[in-house]
Amino acid sequence: MKFIEGGVCAAKGFTAGGIHCGIRKNKEKRDLSIIYSETLAATAATYTTNLVKGAPLTVTKNNIADGYAQAVICNSGNANTCNFDGIEVAEKMCQLLADGLSIKASDVVVASTGVIGQRLDVTPIANSIPALISSLSENGSDNAAEGIMTTDTVKKEVAVEFEIGGKTCHIGGIAKGSGMIHPNMATMLVFITCDCAISPAMLQKALSGDIKNTFNMVSVDGDTSTNDMVTVMCNGMAGNDIIDSEGEAYNEFMKALNSVTMNLCRKIAGDGEGATKLLECKVTGAKDEATAKTVAKSVICSSLLKAAMFGADANWGRVLCAIGYSGADVDVNKIDVSFKSNAGEIPVCVNGAGIEFSEEFAKSILVEKEIEILISLKSGEASATAWGCDLTYEYVKINGDYRT
Amino acid sequence: MKFIEGGVCAAKGFTAGGIHCGIRKNKEKRDLSIIYSETLAATAATYTTNLVKGAPLTVTKNNIADGYAQAVICNSGNANTCNFDGIEVAEKMCQLLADGLSIKASDVVVASTGVIGQRLDVTPIANSIPALISSLSENGSDNAAEGIMTTDTVKKEVAVEFEIGGKTCHIGGIAKGSGMIHPNMATMLVFITCDCAISPAMLQKALSGDIKNTFNMVSVDGDTSTNDMVTVMCNGMAGNDIIDSEGEAYNEFMKALNSVTMNLCRKIAGDGEGATKLLECKVTGAKDEATAKTVAKSVICSSLLKAAMFGADANWGRVLCAIGYSGADVDVNKIDVSFKSNAGEIPVCVNGAGIEFSEEFAKSILVEKEIEILISLKSGEASATAWGCDLTYEYVKINGDYRT
Repeated sequence: MKFIEGGVCAAKGFTAGGIHCGIRKNKEKRDLSIIYSETLAATAATYTTNLVKGAPLTVTKNNIADGYAQAVICNSGNANTCNFDGIEVAEKMCQLLADGLSIKASDVVVASTGVIGQRLDVTPIANSIPALISSLSENGSDNAAEGIMTTDTVKKEVAVEFEIGGKTCHIGGIAKGSGMIHPNMATMLVFITCDCAISPAMLQKALSGDIKNTFNMVSVDGDTSTNDMVTVMCNGMAGNDIIDSEGEAYNEFMKALNSVTMNLCRKIAGDGEGATKLLECKVTGAKDEATAKTVAKSVICSSLLKAAMFGADANWGRVLCAIGYSGADVDVNKIDVSFKSNAGEIPVCVNGAGIEFSEEFAKSILVEKEIEILISLKSGEASATAWGCDLTYEYVKINGDYRT
Repeated sequence: MKFIEGGVCAAKGFTAGGIHCGIRKNKEKRDLSIIYSETLAATAATYTTNLVKGAPLTVTKNNIADGYAQAVICNSGNANTCNFDGIEVAEKMCQLLADGLSIKASDVVVASTGVIGQRLDVTPIANSIPALISSLSENGSDNAAEGIMTTDTVKKEVAVEFEIGGKTCHIGGIAKGSGMIHPNMATMLVFITCDCAISPAMLQKALSGDIKNTFNMVSVDGDTSTNDMVTVMCNGMAGNDIIDSEGEAYNEFMKALNSVTMNLCRKIAGDGEGATKLLECKVTGAKDEATAKTVAKSVICSSLLKAAMFGADANWGRVLCAIGYSGADVDVNKIDVSFKSNAGEIPVCVNGAGIEFSEEFAKSILVEKEIEILISLKSGEASATAWGCDLTYEYVKINGDYRT
């Protein structure tokens, strides 16, 4: 398995593109993206657990109920959520794209991201369908990744090449996500494409299993979005024997999928709104996986710890505090904590109590861009990792005046 | 019932004081406080639910197990938590004060607040006991309130006069709390004194009932402290018939207690670290109280909403989003949202969808210092209120370098 270029176009038969259609005022920024597969693709998805759900999610869920899709349309600048005609607009987007591509509207995945609660005018999208379809290209992943960005500062793309039964397969994805990131059984907007042959049921199983350890372990600000969605489309053009049960091929696929999702998780957390650092909290020695996850997520969500990391302050008391209120059943008198980065590793707490350490060395570790917070509970064999970012002035600035 | 001056000294027989003993480097800032009752007082307390608990809480819990106390000692600058000799130090603090006052060490309430994980050197406290006791005065509430402050920018004091069975009673309190505020069945540091006669059991019942609607409904940053504690001491010097069961007198006491705690809640939220605004989220029309509380607390905790309020941005989509992920069972298509302040009230969302409104008028409402977020669920009769504050650059600054 190796990382390759190409994003969502790395897999055979997939093209993508993105244009500026006019939803956003800034003409320099693409705001409408497309992904297309030459053939119908087995498709799975997971959705936000927020009770307030974007209209596009309802339409997508309906469209892929049969397990298949062939194209994706996604706009940024407006979430098409909490307005009176959202469903109608999302369905219209599918129909417009389907007509342009000569496919069925029920084979289109539709998504929107941006401000909640405003009507999405479908006119600029309708007027731009020919241009959108013309933008499809084998090198179009980059433009598609740009078209779905909101407050993201970097495009998020990844692709991996792997083998199943002697056949070379490819899987790649693009993601958007920077604020309102606290996925729960779903996440952000992520579109993954793959040329593997796999049944819709096994694909859904793979995706649902994967996100528990990847996207659901990311938090930027504790706010679960209304429009979170991950989709995976597999068009079978790699020519492998179809994966329709568990076994070696399924495991290989899972590994490749996990490489893509894990990579996108780190990219999303590291590009959290206003973030200057990626935080990775690794919990080991937990009595069970649920405990490990609860602890890791609680630490990564603590505003106080996030602000301390921004200041490169080794304030490990905030780690202990966040473990203590997490709700996890842990023995606080056994907890060890270390901070680690490219500059080295420093233990700061042993058996729940502070130890002497060099503030200078700690600082040199914490000024790095990627910080690991290592927590050993010494009560079992289970482990978990969660991803987040620091809390900065810039986060407040971005969100103090996002809408107006 | 009326608000009066005097804080914790408003109740008969109580004196208080505060000095600088040397725990903090800044000699201008008091760091050690005392409260004293002429007679033994029925005493109740509630404590943090954080599994990581400050050593002073364990010692206090033990000391007031018999239902009585006579004095309080509290330092700021060091939380005496997550270190190897915390219990020993907290017990020593009680003994030192008890010796100075000629009372029993087991009648002392001890508390500490400040940095977690560092040893608390008892020497400066031991050396300052005579000065601390000399500071006791009928006008000492102000100095005691200062001695317990950490990142607080204002002293938090309140007192109320009320009547029970024709006898004039007084209840007052001081509080500290600015960051690490997300109480859960306990809270911050709050010391309340009263001259009512009430049994320890009824006092505990009153306190435990009260905090569910007051301190447990406050959040500054979602972080539940390790050292949260509320104590109430009632010395009976008002001369009322002892309250030892429910009834009119108990209800009058509850009302007075609630006036004090509610007032301190608003003061704590309004002085949240870096805050420029007090946010009050009022939920009505919920099917039950638990739903109303869950919704109110989720909204008040949303980093995105808090940042929007800082920017005076009427981004009500973030209110809907926070209701949606709260876990409460609500019909999102029935939700109405308005913003209100001294400048007026503006509806922004009706039946879960946006309505036209004047951005200018909304701005004029949201630039005020106290903002109400009014949510009507239109599904029942239950209601709840939660208090919080906006999220600002200053919060990040304070917490980026709190410890070093």
